[in-house]
Amino acid sequence: MSDYTKILLEENEIPTQWYNVVPDLPEPPPPQLHPGTLQPATAEDFAALFPRALIEQEMSVERYIDIPGEVLDVYRLWRPSPLFRARRLEKLLDTPAKIFYKYEGVSPAGSHKPNTAVPQVFYNAQEGITKLTTETGAGQWGSSLAFACAQFGLECEIWQVAASYRAKPYRRTMMEIWGGKVHPSPSEVTEYGRSLLAKDPDHPGSLGIAISEAVGEAVASENTRYALGSVLNHVLLHQTVIGEEALLQLAKVGETPDVLVGCTGGGSNFGGLAFPFLREKLAGRMNPVIRCVEPTACPTLTKGQFRYDFGDTAGLTPLMKMHTLGHSFIPEPIHAGGLRYHGMAPLVSHVYQLGLVEAIAIPQTECFAGAVQFARCEGIVPAPEPTHAIAAAIREALACRESGEEKTILTALCGHGHLDLASYDQYLRGEMVDLELSDEAIAAAMAEVPVLA
Amino acid sequence: MSDYTKILLEENEIPTQWYNVVPDLPEPPPPQLHPGTLQPATAEDFAALFPRALIEQEMSVERYIDIPGEVLDVYRLWRPSPLFRARRLEKLLDTPAKIFYKYEGVSPAGSHKPNTAVPQVFYNAQEGITKLTTETGAGQWGSSLAFACAQFGLECEIWQVAASYRAKPYRRTMMEIWGGKVHPSPSEVTEYGRSLLAKDPDHPGSLGIAISEAVGEAVASENTRYALGSVLNHVLLHQTVIGEEALLQLAKVGETPDVLVGCTGGGSNFGGLAFPFLREKLAGRMNPVIRCVEPTACPTLTKGQFRYDFGDTAGLTPLMKMHTLGHSFIPEPIHAGGLRYHGMAPLVSHVYQLGLVEAIAIPQTECFAGAVQFARCEGIVPAPEPTHAIAAAIREALACRESGEEKTILTALCGHGHLDLASYDQYLRGEMVDLELSDEAIAAAMAEVPVLA
Repeated sequence: MSDYTKILLEENEIPTQWYNVVPDLPEPPPPQLHPGTLQPATAEDFAALFPRALIEQEMSVERYIDIPGEVLDVYRLWRPSPLFRARRLEKLLDTPAKIFYKYEGVSPAGSHKPNTAVPQVFYNAQEGITKLTTETGAGQWGSSLAFACAQFGLECEIWQVAASYRAKPYRRTMMEIWGGKVHPSPSEVTEYGRSLLAKDPDHPGSLGIAISEAVGEAVASENTRYALGSVLNHVLLHQTVIGEEALLQLAKVGETPDVLVGCTGGGSNFGGLAFPFLREKLAGRMNPVIRCVEPTACPTLTKGQFRYDFGDTAGLTPLMKMHTLGHSFIPEPIHAGGLRYHGMAPLVSHVYQLGLVEAIAIPQTECFAGAVQFARCEGIVPAPEPTHAIAAAIREALACRESGEEKTILTALCGHGHLDLASYDQYLRGEMVDLELSDEAIAAAMAEVPVLA
Repeated sequence: MSDYTKILLEENEIPTQWYNVVPDLPEPPPPQLHPGTLQPATAEDFAALFPRALIEQEMSVERYIDIPGEVLDVYRLWRPSPLFRARRLEKLLDTPAKIFYKYEGVSPAGSHKPNTAVPQVFYNAQEGITKLTTETGAGQWGSSLAFACAQFGLECEIWQVAASYRAKPYRRTMMEIWGGKVHPSPSEVTEYGRSLLAKDPDHPGSLGIAISEAVGEAVASENTRYALGSVLNHVLLHQTVIGEEALLQLAKVGETPDVLVGCTGGGSNFGGLAFPFLREKLAGRMNPVIRCVEPTACPTLTKGQFRYDFGDTAGLTPLMKMHTLGHSFIPEPIHAGGLRYHGMAPLVSHVYQLGLVEAIAIPQTECFAGAVQFARCEGIVPAPEPTHAIAAAIREALACRESGEEKTILTALCGHGHLDLASYDQYLRGEMVDLELSDEAIAAAMAEVPVLA
């Protein structure tokens, strides 16, 4: 086993419980607030949006939550996912570091998103819900939810950020193959969408706007609920299968990470990989540096403020305390659509605020340069989002070349880029630019964030 | 293990030898002929095209050929590939049959093609070749060769059938990510290409024409050879890792196939899956029906003739005895670009002629209907080529529902459809048509096939 390229697990080694980091943290995270009363949101406040089981998970302080058998059955279509040792990349970089990456692109939708789409649909189906609405940016989440709805026989209606809808028609096709119904957002089918289109018929949309449309539709329709692909506690909970498997896989080859890097948009891929390792760190069983990587064009953690803000643009969601650039902030159209979100998962924000994890921002040309190096060595063409994780892993490996340290680096390649090749085309033709965000742009959006006592 | 969804193997269970079916056949296959002398082609006749090691494999009568360690090292990036039991599809079809599919879409390029691209590049590198040329249709082969060239540091120049080049720009990008240089075919860079463009500037191209251009360039350039992604004996040889792994995987769950179905274009995916099972059948250790599935728009086996013909359109290759629709035949632009080839691998043609395998043709709308059913159950979106295999597996499973037989059906899902979603879009919008081929069209192309004694 000493010359392995990948570490596989058997189906019976899929974790049977999700891990909730909340009870292990030195301080509990601040509660979500009702946007009207500004009091801590109750289970009832969420009832129009989510099924009871997911609301319980959202608020849970249990350390472990059992994964239902029906969910495990679907997970088996692609899980456990492989953990690779990037030996060819190490050789190219001439580094003494070991680079491991957990690859979630083996799922049907091509990313980590089905890890939470499947249980979300399952719990809705259990409670008699017949239709789910959601938003999607690059399309990874929308296709994951459509796939999951096909597994449990639910309808699925998706608002896709208009810029992505137009730039990536094939993601829409993928959603339709699995039975999903897709609208560009802003859309003509909601009042909020129509109001935005009236001002700008070519509105590029944003995740925040698409969330407003999907939430509005769910609240207005019977037997319909909303599903969110990131940010919320229960989403990060479901994603911990990534980190739990990675822990088991590293243990099989006798490794513990010195550095863990993951890309952060809403925070679910990062939380899913990092939280089980954070548990081990807090328990003193290992001591990895844990680092978030975000795009310089949407630097939520490194340039945003830790404030109560809305999850969506219209201000329909509960207020969440998180790192935010302001809910009215519309990020530049960088290629990593999944990282174009104004906020950060409250749990990721909280552990960052507590100093338990670090954060850096990397410009997209450096990310794509790293991704092309990676693809030529390792074969897999990464999605634009995890190019950030790869670029950070390469930075770390090159630092090890300088210092001579034999660090073990762990990252997550959270999806493949098969439906994002236009971004590589732009990069290869030398037409990709780095979008630096001005302090003025951030200040303008922050001015609209509610000021709470 | 009784409720498994997929059967995985460890890296050390990758086969260490390729299987050559030739010595096990009741009759040897007819030799390839030099197009000038019409005498059996010698190793020297191939020397301008292929490295010595591959020519030896092309003509070998050894039953097993060792896989070099350097090739196994690259195979480990994705092999062994998983064998799935399609339990959800079985349930949807309400069939007593068991459906197994070997999934080759886990490779970096997304199909079985890297299984032969990697050894072909390795042997060329061993013999000091610095550049390879090739043709590609849908792009699976071109991207596989570009990936393999990146592994061993060779240049890669690719002629892509113009219709596909224009319809699928992202396959080109994928080839470029791995360092490949891509031309539409017919191209302005070869004399033959220019001659065709002079007659028709919008010429859609064909695999046969692209082969002519790539072969012409290889013969004319120093330290440059040509690589073919299907048809030839050494290509089918390399693909037998598919069948060998599947045999091992089925044995782990105590299954033997009653029916094996595979899609046939050039024949490499089919041969790779089927030949190890044919060995077992010829040795009396199992008795599966083995069936080729081809598109009704390019029915090489079911409507072509078993004749000596050229592998390319310009008539540059040796003459091969195979089922052919005529080397000047330009198939309709169906979506399964990889099945749009006028001929069939001589080895597949030979075993079909001997009655050891069967063949059927299926129209593309039935194939896509089956593929959408499959995707909604199993998650994976198949490439257009293996939709034919899936449709045939579904036919067989439905027949079992009628008869009550509990057959074990094995097929290969030789690639994913992430870069072929336009075809699904056309299908879902009800705009896909079935292209039946007229006897007159076949007769016209056959009239140009050389008449040999």
